[in-house]
Amino acid sequence: MSLAISPLAPATFPLLPPLAGVRFASTSAGIRYRGRTDVLLVVLDPSTTVAGVLTTSKTRSAPVEWCVAGVRGGSARALVVNAGNANAFTGRRGEESVQRTAAAAAALLGCAPSEVFVSSTGTIGEFLPDHKITDALPAAVDALSGEDWLAAARAIMTTDTFPKGATRQAQIGGVTVTINGIAKGSGMIAPDMATMLAYVFTDAAIPAEALQRMLSDGVQTTFNAITVDGDTSTSDTLLLFATGQAGNPRDADLAEFETALHEVLKDLALQVVRDGEGASKFIAITVTGAESHRAARAIGLTIANSPLVKTAIAGEDANWGRIVAAVGRAGEKADRDWLSIRIGGVPVAAHGLAVPDYDETPVVAHMKGQNIVIEVDVGIASGRFTVWTCDLTHGYIDINGSYRT
Amino acid sequence: MSLAISPLAPATFPLLPPLAGVRFASTSAGIRYRGRTDVLLVVLDPSTTVAGVLTTSKTRSAPVEWCVAGVRGGSARALVVNAGNANAFTGRRGEESVQRTAAAAAALLGCAPSEVFVSSTGTIGEFLPDHKITDALPAAVDALSGEDWLAAARAIMTTDTFPKGATRQAQIGGVTVTINGIAKGSGMIAPDMATMLAYVFTDAAIPAEALQRMLSDGVQTTFNAITVDGDTSTSDTLLLFATGQAGNPRDADLAEFETALHEVLKDLALQVVRDGEGASKFIAITVTGAESHRAARAIGLTIANSPLVKTAIAGEDANWGRIVAAVGRAGEKADRDWLSIRIGGVPVAAHGLAVPDYDETPVVAHMKGQNIVIEVDVGIASGRFTVWTCDLTHGYIDINGSYRT
Repeated sequence: MSLAISPLAPATFPLLPPLAGVRFASTSAGIRYRGRTDVLLVVLDPSTTVAGVLTTSKTRSAPVEWCVAGVRGGSARALVVNAGNANAFTGRRGEESVQRTAAAAAALLGCAPSEVFVSSTGTIGEFLPDHKITDALPAAVDALSGEDWLAAARAIMTTDTFPKGATRQAQIGGVTVTINGIAKGSGMIAPDMATMLAYVFTDAAIPAEALQRMLSDGVQTTFNAITVDGDTSTSDTLLLFATGQAGNPRDADLAEFETALHEVLKDLALQVVRDGEGASKFIAITVTGAESHRAARAIGLTIANSPLVKTAIAGEDANWGRIVAAVGRAGEKADRDWLSIRIGGVPVAAHGLAVPDYDETPVVAHMKGQNIVIEVDVGIASGRFTVWTCDLTHGYIDINGSYRT
Repeated sequence: MSLAISPLAPATFPLLPPLAGVRFASTSAGIRYRGRTDVLLVVLDPSTTVAGVLTTSKTRSAPVEWCVAGVRGGSARALVVNAGNANAFTGRRGEESVQRTAAAAAALLGCAPSEVFVSSTGTIGEFLPDHKITDALPAAVDALSGEDWLAAARAIMTTDTFPKGATRQAQIGGVTVTINGIAKGSGMIAPDMATMLAYVFTDAAIPAEALQRMLSDGVQTTFNAITVDGDTSTSDTLLLFATGQAGNPRDADLAEFETALHEVLKDLALQVVRDGEGASKFIAITVTGAESHRAARAIGLTIANSPLVKTAIAGEDANWGRIVAAVGRAGEKADRDWLSIRIGGVPVAAHGLAVPDYDETPVVAHMKGQNIVIEVDVGIASGRFTVWTCDLTHGYIDINGSYRT
C-alpha cells in the first residue's frame, strides 16, 4: 500500500552534518520490499560507547534481546538494521539469524560480534532470510560514507510516510560536539509489527554509564511521552552511540550536551507522532495539578489513548466531557469538583463545571487547526507532564484494516 | 444522528413477563430528544431489596453517588432514569437536581427519597433540566403498568441501535422466580462499568446482603468482561431489585437463582457489545494458561482494547502478530516461546512460532463471519478468562467524530 505523506510532516528533512567516527551505507537486500533500500549498515570507530532503551514487551524480538545484552557491554562498532521483517516470534531460529548477522559484520569489520547491534522491523512471525542481509554486507562496507543521512533514514522506514531526522550541537568543556538522530515509526507499533526504531549518534566522548543515564532520563519526557494508539511493539529500540572523536575533555560538565540530546530525542519523538497512522491533527496534552509527575503522565496518556477523545478531535469537536471521563478512569487521584480544562488556551471547564457562556468562536477555530493544545488542571497538587498524540481517523482504519491483504 | 441497527443485533427483543411488585411507565420529557420517550419510572412494592455495582470513575456523576448511598440503605421503592443528559460534571447543581428528582418521586409514591434511585445518561457538562422530569412524573405514575418491558428498554437508549432485554427463571425452595433485565450502552464501554446502565428485577425474596454478593460476583465475568473502546464513563450503573413477591422461602438455597442471574447479566452485557458503536464483528477472546485468572483477564482486555487487533478484525485479517504484541505489553507474566494462538479453532501459532503451513482456508472463512473466536494460551499456568469485544470500524469514527455536532 502506498501512503500519502502525512499532512503533519515537517516541510523538509534537516541537514545532518557528517559525524567523526560514523560512516554508513544503505542497500537493497530485497527482504520484503522491491525497488527501495531496506538494509542500513552503520560502522563506528573503535572506542565508541553505547546506551540503549528497549521495549519492555514480554514478547520482544530476538534482535531486541541481542541489543539489551550489547548495551550491557557498553561498547559498539556497528549497527545493522533491516526493514520488512521484524524477526519477532521466530524462536531459536530468530536468535540464530541475529547471531549470524552480527558474526558476518564482525568478521568484515574486525570486531567482536557483541559490538554489532542488530535491529529488524517489519512483518512478525516469519523467519528472517538473514543470508540476504549478510550477502549484502560486503558491498555496503565498500560503500561506507558519512554524508547521506537522509538515505540512512529512508532505508529503515516501513509504513512511515516521511523520513525522520534531527540534529543539534552543544559544547562540552569548550569543544563543540554534534548529535544526529534518525528514527522510524508511525505508531508505538506500526502495522504488522513494524516498530519504533531510533538511532542517535554523537562525536562526543562520554562514558557508557553517563550516556545511559542521560538517555534513560531523556526518554521519560520524549519517547515515553508519545502515543499513537497505545500499542507497544515487540521491537522498539532506541540506541545512542558516542564515538569520542570530537576530542572533548572527559571530565567536563555535560549539562549543555544533555539539553541538546533531549532536544534531539523530543524532535524525533514528535516526528513519529506527526507520522501517526492516518493522523490529521497533532495534539499536545499538558496535565498540571496532579498528585505527582507520574500521576500527571498517567492521566495524560489515558486522555491521549482514549478513542473517544481522539475521534472527537478528528471531528473538530471540543468535546471536553470525554476528557473528564478519561481523567476519571485514569486510576489516579482526582476530584471532579477541582478539575479545570482549557482547549486552545480557552477555559471551557473550571472547578468541576462548564465555564458558563465561554466564547466558543476561538475554540471552534482552534479545533479546525492542525495543532491542538489541551490543558487539564487536576487542581490537587503540583504534578505536571506533557504527552503528545494524534487523532484517530478513517485513515487509521484504512491502514490497519487492510495492511496484509 | 440516526443510526442503522447493528448487524450484530439479536433478531428480536425477548418476551419479558410481568413481575410481581414491579410496575413502570416511560414518557417523553423532551430533555434532549424529540419524538421519543426519554424518562423511565419504575415503582417497586414495599420491602424491595436492592444491590448495585457502580462506576469507579473519579469523576462519577451526581446520580451515581446518589445510587451508591441508596444501595448502602438496602431498600428501594422507585427508579427514575432519563436519557439525553448525564448530569455529570455539574457540581452542586447536579446534586440538587438528583435530590429534587428523588424528592418529587418520593412525594408521589409515599416513600423516603433515599429509596428512590436516579440515573441519567447522555451529554456531560450540561445542567439537567430536572423540572422536565419532575413535571412528567405524575402522568407516569398514572400510567404505571407491568407489561411493556420493550418500551421501558427503549426509553433509556442513547446511541443504542436496539433495545436490550433478557429474562430467565429459577427455582428457590421449590418456588419459581423470574429475573428480568434491561440495559443500554454502545460506546464508552469498558470493565469497571461505562456509560452503561442496566437494571435487573426479580420477584424473589432475597436479603440485600445476599443480593449484593451475587451481583458483585456475577459482574466479574459479565459486565466486567466486556469492552468496546476501553473508555469507562462517569455514569455506569447496574442495579438489582428484588421485590420479594414470589413468596419463596427466605432460607432456601440460592444456587439456581445465582446461575440464572449470571445468565441475565451475561446476556445483557453481550448485547451491549453487540451494539458497540460501528461494530461489524462480535469477538470472544479466551485466554488460558496465564499466571492467574486475574492475569488472564488483563491479557484478554489488552488484546480486546488494542486498536490494531480491532482494526485487523474489521479488515477480516487473521493478524495474530498483533495479538502477540498485545500479550507482550499486557504487563502480565508471559514467555514468547510458550505462547500459542488459535483463530476460529485453528492453531496459527504454537510455542512461540507460526504454525508452519497451516491451512488458511478455514481461518479466512472464519474471519469473514460475524462471530470471531480467538484463543490464546500463555502456556505457563492455569489462569483462564474470557472477554468479549467488537471490532473498530469506520462506523466508530463516524459516530464519535460527530456526536455533538
